[in-house]
Amino acid sequence: MYAVILAGGSGTRFWPLSRKVRPKQLISVFGGKSMLQRTVERVLLLAPKRIIVVTNELQAKETTAQLEGIIAVPVDVIPEPLGRNTAPAIGLAAAIIARHDPEAVMTVFPADHFISDGELFRETLLTAREAALNGYLVTLGILPTRPETGYGYIEADRSLRGEGPYPVARFVEKPPMETALQFLESGNFYWNSGMFAWKVSTILDAMEELMPDLRQGLHRLEFPRIWDLADLNPQIREMYAETASLSIDYGVMEKAPNVMVVPARFGWSDVGSWSALPEVLEPDDGGNVIVDAAGSVAVDADGNIIYADGKLVGIVGVRDVIVVTTGDALLVCDRERAQDVKKVVEELERRGLQDYL
Amino acid sequence: MYAVILAGGSGTRFWPLSRKVRPKQLISVFGGKSMLQRTVERVLLLAPKRIIVVTNELQAKETTAQLEGIIAVPVDVIPEPLGRNTAPAIGLAAAIIARHDPEAVMTVFPADHFISDGELFRETLLTAREAALNGYLVTLGILPTRPETGYGYIEADRSLRGEGPYPVARFVEKPPMETALQFLESGNFYWNSGMFAWKVSTILDAMEELMPDLRQGLHRLEFPRIWDLADLNPQIREMYAETASLSIDYGVMEKAPNVMVVPARFGWSDVGSWSALPEVLEPDDGGNVIVDAAGSVAVDADGNIIYADGKLVGIVGVRDVIVVTTGDALLVCDRERAQDVKKVVEELERRGLQDYL
Repeated sequence: MYAVILAGGSGTRFWPLSRKVRPKQLISVFGGKSMLQRTVERVLLLAPKRIIVVTNELQAKETTAQLEGIIAVPVDVIPEPLGRNTAPAIGLAAAIIARHDPEAVMTVFPADHFISDGELFRETLLTAREAALNGYLVTLGILPTRPETGYGYIEADRSLRGEGPYPVARFVEKPPMETALQFLESGNFYWNSGMFAWKVSTILDAMEELMPDLRQGLHRLEFPRIWDLADLNPQIREMYAETASLSIDYGVMEKAPNVMVVPARFGWSDVGSWSALPEVLEPDDGGNVIVDAAGSVAVDADGNIIYADGKLVGIVGVRDVIVVTTGDALLVCDRERAQDVKKVVEELERRGLQDYL
Repeated sequence: MYAVILAGGSGTRFWPLSRKVRPKQLISVFGGKSMLQRTVERVLLLAPKRIIVVTNELQAKETTAQLEGIIAVPVDVIPEPLGRNTAPAIGLAAAIIARHDPEAVMTVFPADHFISDGELFRETLLTAREAALNGYLVTLGILPTRPETGYGYIEADRSLRGEGPYPVARFVEKPPMETALQFLESGNFYWNSGMFAWKVSTILDAMEELMPDLRQGLHRLEFPRIWDLADLNPQIREMYAETASLSIDYGVMEKAPNVMVVPARFGWSDVGSWSALPEVLEPDDGGNVIVDAAGSVAVDADGNIIYADGKLVGIVGVRDVIVVTTGDALLVCDRERAQDVKKVVEELERRGLQDYL
């Protein structure tokens, strides 16, 4: 089994901790290791032959640096010259693996998700691998825990099988609240997690059929016989210039006939903003989530989310406030407004304050 | 004229910026110069012969360091071995000046008050000096702007004179709200500011009469003929060990017959806590007071007070929150609860976290 980690994200919602060159997956949102490092550690539980990390040119250096300590498995860091969504990144990784091992199973993971139960993660992926070996395109579906309107859903055809994997009835874009509530109640819907498993040959065949332009571009790449990918960059640059930006969901999964969903019951969060931290970190006795603090004293304060950058924290009389302090910036935000942190980043961009982006 | 600055305060309400060795008067609450430095600059407008700064041993070094740039006037820093309230500090300064110039006028200023109008300050002090030269103990009374229950009041006898100075009818301790409202409406009451002017001989004579023990202690001190006060410390230590802790208001002003109040119309604040900053600093266009920031972006946010320690600040969707970030600590506080910052400090003290006190 090979593991592909998609690490090219550049979200702004963890500003000021996240920056263009240090996006969410490369920062220590929880204190300690970065999300990328945690993802790699988790993937190592699957004992992959090799890990391919697809990132972008801006983040390649820091990505490589963060993975330096890993010796159990070879790691390749592939920098994309342009963001082209997930299909080209997955296609590129598949083509690289196919050069050596076309019948291998390839698993795909976003670098910036949180998963609480590593053992259940491993078991779920073994199930997915089984289905992948049988020629299916397998997607992991997260058991929904709330009527979330910010995610895509996967409807499973649960008429035949007990525990899954299930055939996929359909993919559904982010639904309105009423629909999301129905999905939650029906028990047949899963959140689309962006985690996949398939044989390299299966996904490349599907691309041949459904994304022929991308497949052609991949065909033209000349990979070295050994795993020495450093010289590939000019070829990748050429190919990406002519590659459309498309998600693997839209490009392949929603159209392919042989798609299965494996229900994932491990604790999961995409940690979409600062306000998601309490999904992932247990609040302290006072009901506050305080990360990377030298200590804390709370007086009549709860529901707050504080990223303290090693400082001692005092909180008095406030509720549901997010405060993030870093070396050069300070964010103060209502907990319900964490999505709007990107408005601050947009304004900084407008003012040309590159140092803070 | 000689100026005496009382700089021994050790408040906790500006934590985490203020610490035991860097109390309010030594920190840059407004960004830029410290309150002590601003006080000295203001006092220089009065062209004093000499400035005597009374502080304590813990703060003497930093106090001296902060005053190093002043060359217009000689400055003496006198460290008290113990806090004994204002009467002994004022008595000590008076005795020192009396050694050289017993008929000089001596003005007294707290080091940690804010005054907006320097010219009006100068004019007011000239009026006070006039009354002092006529043998009065002069106190400056601030025109009240709200029914403050946290200050002492001075009732003036305004029956005879137009603009003041007025004889003092009585001193009143912190009043309940209803009384404070009456004071505000009557127009005869002033806030007790802790700023004074008198001849050195007048205050020492008053002490002879009203605080004879203190006066005896001062009599025993042997001052050098020149202004070289460095060797005084052992004598001061000995005297303070036997000196009662008493305020000049309680010890002298409330009992002396020759007390006058000069109305002070210059903008004044004792900057008692973080929530007082908007009295002193104009809020920005968004209605937030942001100090020492590299820049700021506010989205649907107002009434906040942010001390940014040089950082860029983003504020989203919050109201009336105080956030203070320093090198090693972070405070998040409701604006109505700024008085309770001391509870954080008390808890840190209880835990023995000396580094943060």
